[in-house]
Amino acid sequence: MLSAALGDGTANRRCTFELFARKLPDGRRYGVVAGTGRFLEALPEFRFDDDACESLAEFLDRDTLAYLRDFRFSGDVDGYAEGELYFPGSPVLSVHGSFAECVLLETMALSIFNHDTAVASAAARMVSAADGRPLLDMGSRRTHEQAAVAAARSAYIAGFAASSNLEAHHRYGVPSEGTSAHAFTLLHTSADGPNEPAAFAAQVDALGPGTTLLVDTYDVTTGVDNAVAAGGTGLGAVRIDSGDLGVLARETRAQLDRLGAMQTRIVVSGDLDEFAVAGLRAEPVDSYGVGTSLVTGSGAPTANMVYKLVEVDGIPVEKRSVHKESHGGRKEALRLSRPTGTITEEIVHPAGRPPPHGEPSRVLTVPLVRNGEPVAATDLGVARELVASGLRSLPWEGLMLSHGDPAIPTTQIPVPRPPSDTQE
Amino acid sequence: MLSAALGDGTANRRCTFELFARKLPDGRRYGVVAGTGRFLEALPEFRFDDDACESLAEFLDRDTLAYLRDFRFSGDVDGYAEGELYFPGSPVLSVHGSFAECVLLETMALSIFNHDTAVASAAARMVSAADGRPLLDMGSRRTHEQAAVAAARSAYIAGFAASSNLEAHHRYGVPSEGTSAHAFTLLHTSADGPNEPAAFAAQVDALGPGTTLLVDTYDVTTGVDNAVAAGGTGLGAVRIDSGDLGVLARETRAQLDRLGAMQTRIVVSGDLDEFAVAGLRAEPVDSYGVGTSLVTGSGAPTANMVYKLVEVDGIPVEKRSVHKESHGGRKEALRLSRPTGTITEEIVHPAGRPPPHGEPSRVLTVPLVRNGEPVAATDLGVARELVASGLRSLPWEGLMLSHGDPAIPTTQIPVPRPPSDTQE
Repeated sequence: MLSAALGDGTANRRCTFELFARKLPDGRRYGVVAGTGRFLEALPEFRFDDDACESLAEFLDRDTLAYLRDFRFSGDVDGYAEGELYFPGSPVLSVHGSFAECVLLETMALSIFNHDTAVASAAARMVSAADGRPLLDMGSRRTHEQAAVAAARSAYIAGFAASSNLEAHHRYGVPSEGTSAHAFTLLHTSADGPNEPAAFAAQVDALGPGTTLLVDTYDVTTGVDNAVAAGGTGLGAVRIDSGDLGVLARETRAQLDRLGAMQTRIVVSGDLDEFAVAGLRAEPVDSYGVGTSLVTGSGAPTANMVYKLVEVDGIPVEKRSVHKESHGGRKEALRLSRPTGTITEEIVHPAGRPPPHGEPSRVLTVPLVRNGEPVAATDLGVARELVASGLRSLPWEGLMLSHGDPAIPTTQIPVPRPPSDTQE
Repeated sequence: MLSAALGDGTANRRCTFELFARKLPDGRRYGVVAGTGRFLEALPEFRFDDDACESLAEFLDRDTLAYLRDFRFSGDVDGYAEGELYFPGSPVLSVHGSFAECVLLETMALSIFNHDTAVASAAARMVSAADGRPLLDMGSRRTHEQAAVAAARSAYIAGFAASSNLEAHHRYGVPSEGTSAHAFTLLHTSADGPNEPAAFAAQVDALGPGTTLLVDTYDVTTGVDNAVAAGGTGLGAVRIDSGDLGVLARETRAQLDRLGAMQTRIVVSGDLDEFAVAGLRAEPVDSYGVGTSLVTGSGAPTANMVYKLVEVDGIPVEKRSVHKESHGGRKEALRLSRPTGTITEEIVHPAGRPPPHGEPSRVLTVPLVRNGEPVAATDLGVARELVASGLRSLPWEGLMLSHGDPAIPTTQIPVPRPPSDTQE
């Protein structure tokens, strides 16, 4: 495309591409935008070095290679702040520049947003299902090694308390937390058989009694006895990773209390998703470790966002195929709410022309990049607070876990076509 | 775990960890091992540099940090060759060394195998559904930007013809192929309206008549007329990305033939998975572009492999919780077949003690790493041929796309416990 557009001179046309989702995944009622910060960090580094150009030389003509060698995105980007809720048609990113520079960003932008948003959208449902109890990301082993780092970041934005991924701490400052695995207990086996007390003693020696001991390697009841014997009544927590977690949590709570370990917390893990988390709400569970379902978006591993050309030299454009209508023209959005703060409607309107309305509203489209330079902050704490306030703003049915319609409707105000545009 | 094991001296116990899947994902009948080559490439680079150690210093004691600073895996790894089929319980990797060095590899190994195997396992089903017609990976935009590169590699191993991911070509030599997007056609819009002929002419000028023109931006019939007008009857291909692909393919084939473009191929794309690919088998489709369902494992985005300690100082160990039995002891595997080559049974047996049997068999466990150095080739072509021969070896019901049991049973021959082991 780049080669052909450079060839016929259209590469320099001023374009707007829009990144959005036609629908929410899998009957969800809202989505959570994530990836904005990673996109802003990746943008200045999105260049083609000698090595890349050499590899591309077998496909591309000299002019295209020369363009790539000097490439640096110099356009503008507007869009939703990271952590903002989104709905079908929300213009999550709006990218402005020459066709050439905008089209080159497509795969990078979509990859980042489709992955990070899928994880954050699933994670937010788990956070609301946990109803204030902390959630720990333990999913790194279930996804690509680099995706795991981004997933930990997205989970934290959505409200997870911490991640076992140390690289996410290193790279993004995500709080780190972890527990031991069954392997550590099994390691303490000799010719005389298993020795769970030795494993627990070693862990408490190394990490202090505030540590979390995994008690289900052999027998949970014996494991809890051994755990309190090793860590004392001030033991931090025990983790249960298998079996009927509700029943085991109740029995373990009673046992810990009998042993005097009233403050020892109970962590559960093992194929949890938002439904399982919700199902344990009435049980004496203090925190949840979530793995597979978090990093795979709990049934929706991609947000299915698309990146579509919507405007060329000021003219709205759109594809006209069945079921894939795009809405041409450069757009912005705002969200209406009741005076109580409960949101009622998303309005997507032509850029610069917000419609008159009487309700309280909030502008969703903010400047992210100007002349190729990021201008928005990429603070995870700010994004995290935006998710939390977004969840508080949803109508009550928006927090339901069952399949349903988007929590609020999106109204698309069409961009008027220029009078000289004679297309039907 | 590392800190505690260094503290009590168990870190140096000789251990075997096994990487395997308890079950195949989502009613699948076979899985395809992928990631072995990436694991072997990553292993020598799995070190902790100053930057990493500095970041870890806030969590770890001095001895543990010192261990990590000098860390280099020096053990052995056996396992299945990349591209080998696997079934529940197949010992895909068997990692031997000190507890410390083996446990450190867990997350890296699982991340690579869980991701790459999930993609290859889904891709192989698409390949068999396509019945010889080429498949193109177009899924990069639907997954994390680095996962996309690994997904292209996995898809190629499983039998895909090419990928639109240029980095996968650069890094792994995966053949590159791509088509244009709707944006390129929409770009050719002026105040006089859309101009599909101009877009097609520009593409043919840049890439020659052998190119693939996307014909469904406005109207498919007009698009096909415009495509042949631009590329001539020697036009390479047209792509249809929306609508009822079967009906449109038939109509387009008839139209192309009427126009004299008998050799022009038809590429279809748009939310295809193995079921849609199979459903188009009777239609005049020449190749398929597959995106989302490929890179997300078509409903099974992770292979759910686990990494379990199975042996400590020669003693088999295993967790004893309901539904999560592991089978202790270091193991190897072989696969039995009929004289025709159709496989009949997977036998997982104690290492070094293959059971006597009368059928033709193939040893599945091969040396991958010795003293920390990779000793197995990582050639994608070899892995690709192994998948192809594996698919040919399946009993016919193994290739069915419907949910079902594994195509062959796995027999686990228990590792005898040492006589001094008194556990029940």
